[in-house]
Amino acid sequence: MATTQVKAFGTEAPEAALQQMNIERRNVTPKDVEIEILFCGVCHSDLHTARNDWGGTIYPAVPGHEIVGKVSSIGAEVSKFKVGDLVGVGCIVDSCKTCDSCKQDLEQYCLNGFTGTYNGKDKHSGKQTFGGYSEKVTVNEEFVLHIPKNLDLAAAAPLLCAGVTTWSPLKHWNVKEGSKVAVVGLGGLGHMAIKLAKGLGASVTLFSRTPDKIADAKELGADEVVISTDDSQMKSVAGKFDLIIDTVPYVHDINPYVATLNISGTLVLVGYLGPLEPFLNSVPMILGRKSVAGSVIGGIAETQEMLDFCGKHNIVSEIEMINMQDINASYERMLKSDVKYRFVIDMASLK
Amino acid sequence: MATTQVKAFGTEAPEAALQQMNIERRNVTPKDVEIEILFCGVCHSDLHTARNDWGGTIYPAVPGHEIVGKVSSIGAEVSKFKVGDLVGVGCIVDSCKTCDSCKQDLEQYCLNGFTGTYNGKDKHSGKQTFGGYSEKVTVNEEFVLHIPKNLDLAAAAPLLCAGVTTWSPLKHWNVKEGSKVAVVGLGGLGHMAIKLAKGLGASVTLFSRTPDKIADAKELGADEVVISTDDSQMKSVAGKFDLIIDTVPYVHDINPYVATLNISGTLVLVGYLGPLEPFLNSVPMILGRKSVAGSVIGGIAETQEMLDFCGKHNIVSEIEMINMQDINASYERMLKSDVKYRFVIDMASLK
Ligand SMILES: [Zn+2]
Ligand SMILES: [Zn+2]
Ligand SMILES: [Zn+2]
Ligand SMILES: [Zn+2]
Repeated sequence: MATTQVKAFGTEAPEAALQQMNIERRNVTPKDVEIEILFCGVCHSDLHTARNDWGGTIYPAVPGHEIVGKVSSIGAEVSKFKVGDLVGVGCIVDSCKTCDSCKQDLEQYCLNGFTGTYNGKDKHSGKQTFGGYSEKVTVNEEFVLHIPKNLDLAAAAPLLCAGVTTWSPLKHWNVKEGSKVAVVGLGGLGHMAIKLAKGLGASVTLFSRTPDKIADAKELGADEVVISTDDSQMKSVAGKFDLIIDTVPYVHDINPYVATLNISGTLVLVGYLGPLEPFLNSVPMILGRKSVAGSVIGGIAETQEMLDFCGKHNIVSEIEMINMQDINASYERMLKSDVKYRFVIDMASLK
Repeated sequence: MATTQVKAFGTEAPEAALQQMNIERRNVTPKDVEIEILFCGVCHSDLHTARNDWGGTIYPAVPGHEIVGKVSSIGAEVSKFKVGDLVGVGCIVDSCKTCDSCKQDLEQYCLNGFTGTYNGKDKHSGKQTFGGYSEKVTVNEEFVLHIPKNLDLAAAAPLLCAGVTTWSPLKHWNVKEGSKVAVVGLGGLGHMAIKLAKGLGASVTLFSRTPDKIADAKELGADEVVISTDDSQMKSVAGKFDLIIDTVPYVHDINPYVATLNISGTLVLVGYLGPLEPFLNSVPMILGRKSVAGSVIGGIAETQEMLDFCGKHNIVSEIEMINMQDINASYERMLKSDVKYRFVIDMASLK
């Protein structure tokens, strides 16, 4: 396999800082698109993978799966893109394309395991995939997205992960004009959930532990902020919501939120992976036909649908631009939730 | 309010045995149907209410909400029934008819609280309602069901609670020809879930802790029995089911069943009310877009739909007929799951 060396930023070990390195990218094969990366969003998964928080990280690791850039080269059989197109790549760069999930455009649930944009098993090289903290990336055109021209390119980057992660449950659970949606947590995911639900015509409530987020949430489009630590406020929204998108990434009691679901409503976890402590109580679920569910990112067709929707409604992420060399300090700030609401790396800084 | 005394079987205290007593039934008001009760199924809720296991029982208590009989009198404005019709009454004898749930034919989720057939608050008398362990009952025609003539009347009685409790989730979660359904637990609810899912064209698997139920389950229509204590059998159905109806009435680990759900599948609890111990793990839910939900009985229109379906497919409950005087002994047998699969009282024995 013919490859070309490109500059990247990655890490050699869980405790090591990220630093500049060189990686090999394959030269385009017939179905490939080569992308010059212009911006890359910084997702919590990047940090967890760099530090091997979930285990399974293969080093060197180059994170980044909120990639936007410009097509710099295409393979002979590429039909969907031409050189110069503005494109994006999210969390998925390959999947089996033959399983029941893939056949339904649900590559995120590929029964044979999708290939992650980083730390995935690259079918071409046989080694780990490298993410968007780099100059270029080569991706099969089936996993490349068109970015609407009217969107600010840097601010569109987080749509590729944070955007579709909240869009997918909003669509799957049929949020539309007049739906009542609540969002738990106001971070990268939460702020996108507010914007997208609002764009779909829902009335949107943010649950927040403290009042200091009220002004920000309303500016993002939330109709209402409910302080989840205030019993009387929580009671005032009992039985109200058709869908709750819970973006909180750490263990927390979801029972108080279940109480705010309408009959047949669903609470969808998109942030926290682990045991639901304290015990989830089935009584309100049974007596109100309520569901607790989970959802992960989104499929490729769905991601394009979301991007087109964002183009039409002029929706992008709120971002803070950083240079590649700031990444280690930015991770520290992310751990303190000190970002409104997503860091995006200006990849020009890597040159 | 004009009333008539009728014979019933009920209890005066949590520890007391059920015994014969007299209760007052209202004479028909314009919208009422008076029913001569011919058979009444015996539900676990009857026992729990009689013994105040859930608190809130008002004494004397007369259980029974799987009622079938013959119309013996009708009010002046009754339009749906005539004297002599074969009819049924389930768990609900009244609701507000004005809330969002009632307007959607979801009386079981009436936001103002439906009136239970027994131990409910009777809007006419202001006292507790009395159930079907009695000679007669008077019910507003909106809450009375037609029983298809071709069904065995005694065996149709359990359709009014056990039947609709399993039918409602099968329909809500869209079970149809080719769906893959699993049922946890083979009791009154479980055996109806198998028959109804099979009637809808699903392939049906029973989860059972022990092999001794294999023959019975297959006779009821199950395509397969998976022994839930056998890891290799559980692994063989990983990711298989679109819907699992979990009828187990006591606390149990549902995580092994969640593992057998297909992408976007749902496990519906219809039996166990309480904290889900051990902790439910969100990881497979998120990575497979799986849901855990609850469901309670069904609405009136849905109950009629289920009865009509049972008429068409000749589906009834498997029953063991008892006399009214056997009720206390039958409760003891129910507690040991010593019944295949529902006791039904021949109300002629009360005369
Ligand atoms: Zn991400
Ligand atoms: Zn696949
Ligand atoms: Zn019942
Ligand atoms: Zn109502």
